[in-house]
Amino acid sequence: MSNQKKFNVAVVGATGAVGEQIIRLLETRDFPINELKLLSSPRSAGTKIKFKDKEVTVEAATAQSFEGVDIALFSAGGDVSKELAPLAAAGGTVCIDNTSAFRMDPNTPLVVPEVNIDAIQEHKGIIANPNCSTIQMVAALKPLYDRYGISKIIVSTYQAVSGSGSKAIDEMLRQSREVLAGNPVNPDILPVGSLPVKHQIAFNAIPQIDKFLDNGFTNEEMKMINETKKIMQDESIQVTATCVRIPVVYGHSESVYVELKEDFEMEEVLRLIADAPGIVLQDNPQEQQYPLATDAAGKLETFVGRVRRDLNNTRALNMWIVSDNLLKGAAWNAVQIAEHIAQEQK
Amino acid sequence: MSNQKKFNVAVVGATGAVGEQIIRLLETRDFPINELKLLSSPRSAGTKIKFKDKEVTVEAATAQSFEGVDIALFSAGGDVSKELAPLAAAGGTVCIDNTSAFRMDPNTPLVVPEVNIDAIQEHKGIIANPNCSTIQMVAALKPLYDRYGISKIIVSTYQAVSGSGSKAIDEMLRQSREVLAGNPVNPDILPVGSLPVKHQIAFNAIPQIDKFLDNGFTNEEMKMINETKKIMQDESIQVTATCVRIPVVYGHSESVYVELKEDFEMEEVLRLIADAPGIVLQDNPQEQQYPLATDAAGKLETFVGRVRRDLNNTRALNMWIVSDNLLKGAAWNAVQIAEHIAQEQK
Repeated sequence: MSNQKKFNVAVVGATGAVGEQIIRLLETRDFPINELKLLSSPRSAGTKIKFKDKEVTVEAATAQSFEGVDIALFSAGGDVSKELAPLAAAGGTVCIDNTSAFRMDPNTPLVVPEVNIDAIQEHKGIIANPNCSTIQMVAALKPLYDRYGISKIIVSTYQAVSGSGSKAIDEMLRQSREVLAGNPVNPDILPVGSLPVKHQIAFNAIPQIDKFLDNGFTNEEMKMINETKKIMQDESIQVTATCVRIPVVYGHSESVYVELKEDFEMEEVLRLIADAPGIVLQDNPQEQQYPLATDAAGKLETFVGRVRRDLNNTRALNMWIVSDNLLKGAAWNAVQIAEHIAQEQK
Repeated sequence: MSNQKKFNVAVVGATGAVGEQIIRLLETRDFPINELKLLSSPRSAGTKIKFKDKEVTVEAATAQSFEGVDIALFSAGGDVSKELAPLAAAGGTVCIDNTSAFRMDPNTPLVVPEVNIDAIQEHKGIIANPNCSTIQMVAALKPLYDRYGISKIIVSTYQAVSGSGSKAIDEMLRQSREVLAGNPVNPDILPVGSLPVKHQIAFNAIPQIDKFLDNGFTNEEMKMINETKKIMQDESIQVTATCVRIPVVYGHSESVYVELKEDFEMEEVLRLIADAPGIVLQDNPQEQQYPLATDAAGKLETFVGRVRRDLNNTRALNMWIVSDNLLKGAAWNAVQIAEHIAQEQK
């Protein structure tokens, strides 16, 4: 990447679970950086973070932070993005936003590079990163969509606690220790930090991620439903989701039933998945090989297995899709978008 | 229950996870017992188990063990049932078998009392208890089946390790301690004791329960598919299952999509579920109330929540079904059957 244009890059939410991964990826991917600005809430300002051979001091994010910044990656919560991203964009910064703030905004492209990279052309300063559980599903289904079309998706998720941030990881590990010691568990954060009722996550499964809407679905479920249609640019896909938190640290797993629009041969389906960018087919039942959250943790790819023809609907498939929710589900997808932006401007 | 006939009862597999629960239930339900015989493998024979005010010594199960026994409850593995249940039945013992040995045998009724208690009339000495994951699902869906008919079920499970026995519980707790201590995990039992490849269950989700068949489904998944049709006495129900083990000790959870044959009103659906025998409706999203494995553990009922109309198919519902897999999923369903047998012969 020598001799290419270098960029002033800002990471907003630099001390959070996703921000940490973004910084690590910018480093390991050798992103063409001129100046790196690490931003956070005033509370975390002053923290020093190592980046390559130097230390960068985290600054409090303000409207002025983005002067001269070419690319900003936001993962500091929806409110911060809503306040600062439009200001940064107005000043010429390309903002890649990992929150839900702009995902369904018709003027904001919602991008999974393996699926709809062309959509970034239409950005008006802000590009949205989809929800973690959506990204891995559409990445895995895209090759099948292109070849056969998709009429229906019914997904049940098995989501890691890291999707709720570092404090939820701490809570789950703390609760696990308490249960193993025979002590009472005092839930404090999950399922939803801002809601009054808390449930034990250790050795449990909680069928609530984010708040409930009047239709009985949660926000997380509606994100999967609505974002899938937007990313695929196909409002006709029928999506149903049930989103469940389980005691896993890193890696979302998904049980997916997908109904295609055409007949298919299993051999071709498996080849299409295996050949798709960013996808690893891990599917050998006889060797008991299939994707596992513990294997996917720390990896950039999305892993697909348990691929089998439905026994009732010959146009339907069942499969198991796993990816690291902080990487492909968040930081890596955002850095991939940044790499495309950089590539275009070089 | 005074003055009623008392029965000679045998529990085969008395020292196992399910056997222990059966003994506890016979005690707390005050089952009309004349003599209680506790049977096991030769290895566990000699163990003393308290039953009411006396101690019962566990004996090695042999063909001769069933002389004079009226009712025998088997949960010592399929091989033991295959060998001993037909002999016991030939000698006049009514065998309630908790293994998969006779479930799909056309001459053996497969019974969930809330669903098809009348089927016990046709028994020829053996009555089969369905698979744990099947029992709670059909119990919850029965009121909807009766009112609207069911055309399709797509289920993804979140199954507790106790379904694989006491040693799997020990393994999961041991692995959890190792992970929390930062030590390596050495999987030894799960996903399937008799197969060569082992996977970590602590802080993970394993999409394999039981062995794989050539169609890509596991035995556990095919049990849910085939047993549902047999219990409902309706081969036309299309069932698809993905069965997943998660790090929970007691209580299977299930994400169920069900397509009914008729239009429905949500109010009636909720009332039918709430009024169904053995079912508790726990469904108040605004209060963040829904079934949880940790709440269901130790309880006899099946809990249903997250009931919502599908957004794409107006004849379909999504719901979350949870029950203690060792109780309604095994021991309690078997004891319920025994109570019906006793009731008929009194």
